[in-house]
Amino acid sequence: MSEIKVLVWGLGAMGSGMVSMLARKQGVKVVAGIARTAAKAGKDLGEIAGCEPMGVRATNDVEEAFRTKPDVVLLNTASFIREVFPEIETCLSRGAHVITIAEEMAYPWAASPELAEKIDSLAKRAGKTVLGTGINPGFVLDTLIITLTGVTRDVRHIHARRVNNLAPFGPTVMRTQGVGTTVAEFEKGLRENTIVGHIGFPQSCHLIGRALGWKIDRVVEEREPIISKVERRTKYVWVRPGDVAGCRHIARAYSGGREVIFLEHPQQVCPELEGVETGDYINIDGDPPISMAIRPEIPGGTGTIAIAVNMIPAVIKAQPGLLTMADLPIPRAILGSFVRS
Amino acid sequence: MSEIKVLVWGLGAMGSGMVSMLARKQGVKVVAGIARTAAKAGKDLGEIAGCEPMGVRATNDVEEAFRTKPDVVLLNTASFIREVFPEIETCLSRGAHVITIAEEMAYPWAASPELAEKIDSLAKRAGKTVLGTGINPGFVLDTLIITLTGVTRDVRHIHARRVNNLAPFGPTVMRTQGVGTTVAEFEKGLRENTIVGHIGFPQSCHLIGRALGWKIDRVVEEREPIISKVERRTKYVWVRPGDVAGCRHIARAYSGGREVIFLEHPQQVCPELEGVETGDYINIDGDPPISMAIRPEIPGGTGTIAIAVNMIPAVIKAQPGLLTMADLPIPRAILGSFVRS
Repeated sequence: MSEIKVLVWGLGAMGSGMVSMLARKQGVKVVAGIARTAAKAGKDLGEIAGCEPMGVRATNDVEEAFRTKPDVVLLNTASFIREVFPEIETCLSRGAHVITIAEEMAYPWAASPELAEKIDSLAKRAGKTVLGTGINPGFVLDTLIITLTGVTRDVRHIHARRVNNLAPFGPTVMRTQGVGTTVAEFEKGLRENTIVGHIGFPQSCHLIGRALGWKIDRVVEEREPIISKVERRTKYVWVRPGDVAGCRHIARAYSGGREVIFLEHPQQVCPELEGVETGDYINIDGDPPISMAIRPEIPGGTGTIAIAVNMIPAVIKAQPGLLTMADLPIPRAILGSFVRS
Repeated sequence: MSEIKVLVWGLGAMGSGMVSMLARKQGVKVVAGIARTAAKAGKDLGEIAGCEPMGVRATNDVEEAFRTKPDVVLLNTASFIREVFPEIETCLSRGAHVITIAEEMAYPWAASPELAEKIDSLAKRAGKTVLGTGINPGFVLDTLIITLTGVTRDVRHIHARRVNNLAPFGPTVMRTQGVGTTVAEFEKGLRENTIVGHIGFPQSCHLIGRALGWKIDRVVEEREPIISKVERRTKYVWVRPGDVAGCRHIARAYSGGREVIFLEHPQQVCPELEGVETGDYINIDGDPPISMAIRPEIPGGTGTIAIAVNMIPAVIKAQPGLLTMADLPIPRAILGSFVRS
């Protein structure tokens, strides 16, 4: 293979970040970009991504994009397996590997074993590989945890926490996390499913369970408002004292009636105003115990862009089928050419 | 495969630790143990390992041990590739996979490209896999670093530090690290190669470089005495103020004339007496930067035992040849059966 040809499907913040990352890499080339809004069609991908012109124009036309015969598609269009399934089918039928940041695809058997099996058999028939990844799910609260257990003789319980700051994010994230609402509005949003919190806990828990050999019987999630004691302001939102600064979302996974995994992901704006330090924290109650902290947390946007791009060589080299991060070689930054002898 | 049959070769602290870990696991069985001292021959492996009797006796006879037809050998006999080469050859000629904690085997091309190539071709001919692993080299200062770079778009420099406490260790480690010597004795020991510090820096640097795509031109190591300001005492050694509490061993790896990796591994007794907190620290100067701390450090003995055992299923499933930790799926604790559908 001379140069890996990449189609970036979905040119929002994540997709256009992948375009500009790929523009700086060797042995890999963005050959097409599918935009979902008409406004972006016809624009140079470099312009959309905020980097040098690339001589490739975004299109709304899926067929046109696949005429460039991409080796791999980076699929950044939606969160749920039901939404991305038809697009994955399209990629496979056109002979391309798929890397997607759709959260449910990090461990697709959790949300829909039927669709997961379908993707697996389509991929095997096409001789191609499908992988779900991202910062979380996909790395912090699953891949990294699994990796750390590798140096333990036994694990009794895993407790991990990703504490981040939503201040840089815009109106959509504020709305889906309930930032700036009153407590009553927040509770109503939870009931009506307009406030969703984090997508990915069942995927992370099942990915860990599958890798370690714990049969996960159930994953229980809880969401509650993070009520601010102080005023918090960002470009997009104003949180008054007593109102909601974000969503404290947790998940507990049980195996044989016993809690084996406890994951926390409190997401809020300006946590530092109440002395909360952001970070990624993993505590393995094992033999030996392991206590890890990454401070500040690995940034979500950059991390997701990076891991989707960095997994390209491993996905191309992998066996065909639907895989997870636990099936592939350890992730790594690709600093030289994406094509290696 | 019904149950994985393991031969543990070398029954010192590491080998006997592996025996007792394996005794508690499912889908795997220790079928033989080779002791290198006559005193252990004929003893039940359980007795040597300090666990329940296992009905398998240690032997000094290599041929006898291989008559049990092990699927995999855990090889814990020496640090250097030249020393373990004949033993690896024996394992492969008897049709067994090999996992070794010989430090130089973590990236065997660093110490001897010739022997590494020989092992690779012998392994491929036998259709078996050879892996070098351990806590360090093998995990903390290489595998874990590589994994963390996976969520970065670029890496300029890596600085990592493993700060541990040698207090639990016995006379051999005290001697090879120069603990309890005067500064003059330490310098003499370095010159005469009786004080060696850490074995594994070139391996870790080249493993990182190979995975990320940095061509490592040279690795420069420095060893200096950690001079104690206070009195430090363990069961095995007495360090007077002004004398040597351990060896501060560092390595710098260069690519294209630029330092890209700086690894530190100060090893001493009782660092807490001078306010030094033990831990594993990784700082990636990248995009984004990542700063990770594991406090206290992952214990070396347990960690080495665990990762050698936990890699068994991945090695059995892998392609034949000489592999590294960067070629295999992410490590994990094996809590269920070692044999999976």
